[in-house]
Amino acid sequence: MATIKYYLREELVPAGVATSATQAEYDDHHLRRLRLARALIAVRGLSVSTTREVLRALDEHSTDLHLLFGLALGAVSTEEPDSPSDQPQEPTPADELISALGWEISEKAPTRATITDTLGTLRELGLPADWQTLVPYARLAEQTADLDLAQLEDADDPLERVERAVLLTILMEPVLLALRRMAQENESAKRHPRP
Amino acid sequence: MATIKYYLREELVPAGVATSATQAEYDDHHLRRLRLARALIAVRGLSVSTTREVLRALDEHSTDLHLLFGLALGAVSTEEPDSPSDQPQEPTPADELISALGWEISEKAPTRATITDTLGTLRELGLPADWQTLVPYARLAEQTADLDLAQLEDADDPLERVERAVLLTILMEPVLLALRRMAQENESAKRHPRP
Repeated sequence: MATIKYYLREELVPAGVATSATQAEYDDHHLRRLRLARALIAVRGLSVSTTREVLRALDEHSTDLHLLFGLALGAVSTEEPDSPSDQPQEPTPADELISALGWEISEKAPTRATITDTLGTLRELGLPADWQTLVPYARLAEQTADLDLAQLEDADDPLERVERAVLLTILMEPVLLALRRMAQENESAKRHPRP
Repeated sequence: MATIKYYLREELVPAGVATSATQAEYDDHHLRRLRLARALIAVRGLSVSTTREVLRALDEHSTDLHLLFGLALGAVSTEEPDSPSDQPQEPTPADELISALGWEISEKAPTRATITDTLGTLRELGLPADWQTLVPYARLAEQTADLDLAQLEDADDPLERVERAVLLTILMEPVLLALRRMAQENESAKRHPRP
């Protein structure tokens, strides 16, 4: 019970219904929240305060599935957008990629910076890398996302869908990278037989 | 010059040709080694001793492209395999997946444990997850690996190929995860329009 007390104290899980001075009852909703909070902290490595913010947003926006998924997937922030600057900004490589793909992506998605920064690093290291290189990778990512979302379809409850979205997105990340490394090893073995 | 001195002292880069008591000349080979060592440490987050081991293995096995890629991709260890145990072992979910895919993967690849462990975690969390779930993901990983290896084809020098393999594998990882998250957001926006 040390664990649930901790999550209660940190306001990550709502209080149960008191049945006596020292006992309280918890239902499926509590258990699901506990499981989600634990996954975000222990598996995803989010801080307690970020986890609290994500869970609070889930409570406040439970009918807006688009926003819920965006939050769960770390793509959306609940902060107000900045007022548009008067200075027109040069589009970044990530902006150009997203526009070429025809994707609808939040302006504030942190993934945009990941893409622009990595392309810069690759070029600094002397590797040919521009946003066009990423287009075929992005098309494969679309097919991966289809597989991901298909796994959420059979959950009826919106909160359960969001929980699954978070868990699948986060927990599958090392698996997808492992599959790519193994596929590289297998493909390399086929192309370069042992001498 | 503080940096190259550090890499020299840690034996990550071979000594240059001394041209006077305080000066030495470095050629392309030195620069490439320096760049690779820096990428492994600063970008990939490997320890100095692991980096030294990878670079040493690269020197000793420079004609064995299969082994080189395996090392570079973290799939292969230079240690002797354990002598086979008398106890026949139950195949893990990763073993079953690899066998179903027909992939040729080192017995010692750390990626095997990643897959088996994550499937276990997903099941503990109440999500339906078995190795069969991963087959379509693995087929997409094969196509991703084809894109990766195609980018190495135009490098003539084996060391340069390995360097590119390491850099591409490692540096592209956050990009691939970012593309998946954005593709999920885009797909989710299409399926769940804002209320």
